[in-house]
Amino acid sequence: MEGEIVARYEGVSPSVIRRLPRYYRFLEDLQKKDVHRISSRELSQLMNLTASQIRQDLNCFGGFGQQGYGYNVDALLGEIGNILGLHKGYKVILIGAGNLGLAIAKHMSFETKGFNLIGIFDKQKELIGMPVRHLVISDVNRLENFCKTFSPQVAILCIPREEAPELADRLVNYGIKGFWNFSHYDLAMDYQDIAVENVHLGDSLMTLCYEISEILE
Amino acid sequence: MEGEIVARYEGVSPSVIRRLPRYYRFLEDLQKKDVHRISSRELSQLMNLTASQIRQDLNCFGGFGQQGYGYNVDALLGEIGNILGLHKGYKVILIGAGNLGLAIAKHMSFETKGFNLIGIFDKQKELIGMPVRHLVISDVNRLENFCKTFSPQVAILCIPREEAPELADRLVNYGIKGFWNFSHYDLAMDYQDIAVENVHLGDSLMTLCYEISEILE
Repeated sequence: MEGEIVARYEGVSPSVIRRLPRYYRFLEDLQKKDVHRISSRELSQLMNLTASQIRQDLNCFGGFGQQGYGYNVDALLGEIGNILGLHKGYKVILIGAGNLGLAIAKHMSFETKGFNLIGIFDKQKELIGMPVRHLVISDVNRLENFCKTFSPQVAILCIPREEAPELADRLVNYGIKGFWNFSHYDLAMDYQDIAVENVHLGDSLMTLCYEISEILE
Repeated sequence: MEGEIVARYEGVSPSVIRRLPRYYRFLEDLQKKDVHRISSRELSQLMNLTASQIRQDLNCFGGFGQQGYGYNVDALLGEIGNILGLHKGYKVILIGAGNLGLAIAKHMSFETKGFNLIGIFDKQKELIGMPVRHLVISDVNRLENFCKTFSPQVAILCIPREEAPELADRLVNYGIKGFWNFSHYDLAMDYQDIAVENVHLGDSLMTLCYEISEILE
């Protein structure tokens, strides 16, 4: 079934895929507000996109919109969720329980985004044993055993840049297939067949700097 | 002078602008490693882009590369920094000193990204007075006075979604011209002539979910 979905949408450009989470968020909000049908014009105003951009993006997936009816919010939400795989519940571990790691562990809604957080690790003795959500922070030395036993597929790296390459290598050896990487070190270049999302918050801040200078000067 | 730069680069697409911080990061790394000259082929391997994409992007800015010589790392770094405005030192305040706010306040290198962090605010009494870097967390009730006195241009919102619209309105009234917004509420739609970078970490996690499902299934 899932294989079919992937095959059905092969050839969809990465930039369309990258926009899907945003559609998903807006559609989810609409559903929460009990809106079940929306025209591409209304959706475009809401999302600050052109209606033609929306039609183009969503047509890639077979077109859920009907002329004169608009989009069925529930059907579209379900389908985008399927495409993204948000029902998969991939097992994820988080390494580095500093402020950023804790913020993510505590506040990210993993369950609605395709993941299930099953472990948090740190090397600092003071943090080990501290409860976070339904988990307790474990010693990073126990990573190998943990991975052998529970086979997590994804690791979140909230560790310093200089520790990232070595730890990522180890984790790949332990069977990790994907990284959500906050370490300021770009992992993508080093691995084949490993999914990587490098998050560079500084890039977003530099972009804001450009935007604000355009406004102020 | 800056006006000239902006004018010189008018018409450059937002997607090119959005890629500049990544170029900046890689060029900065090269400079730190004492590399002062690089071919577009080498740069493309490093950044996992095609050489023609790099030439296209950088040609927008007048072409710093020379046939047979490659790019002058220092000149290119300086110019991209100028375009982004990273020397501006815009005054920024941070609101919400939870785990995420503290992670950003403590670890983000504002100075190298165009900003100067001049205030941190929270409403929780226990946090007020706590030292963070060179600052002390202030009561959010003092925002208005603070803004009148020090005229920050940008606010970082690390507050819950439901508090974002009202607080953003107030901050715009206090003269704030840009937001770095982590509140899960999209601000862009509500304001004209205000720069907004909405950071949705969940979008990145959903994209990773898609990528990992492509690998595993």
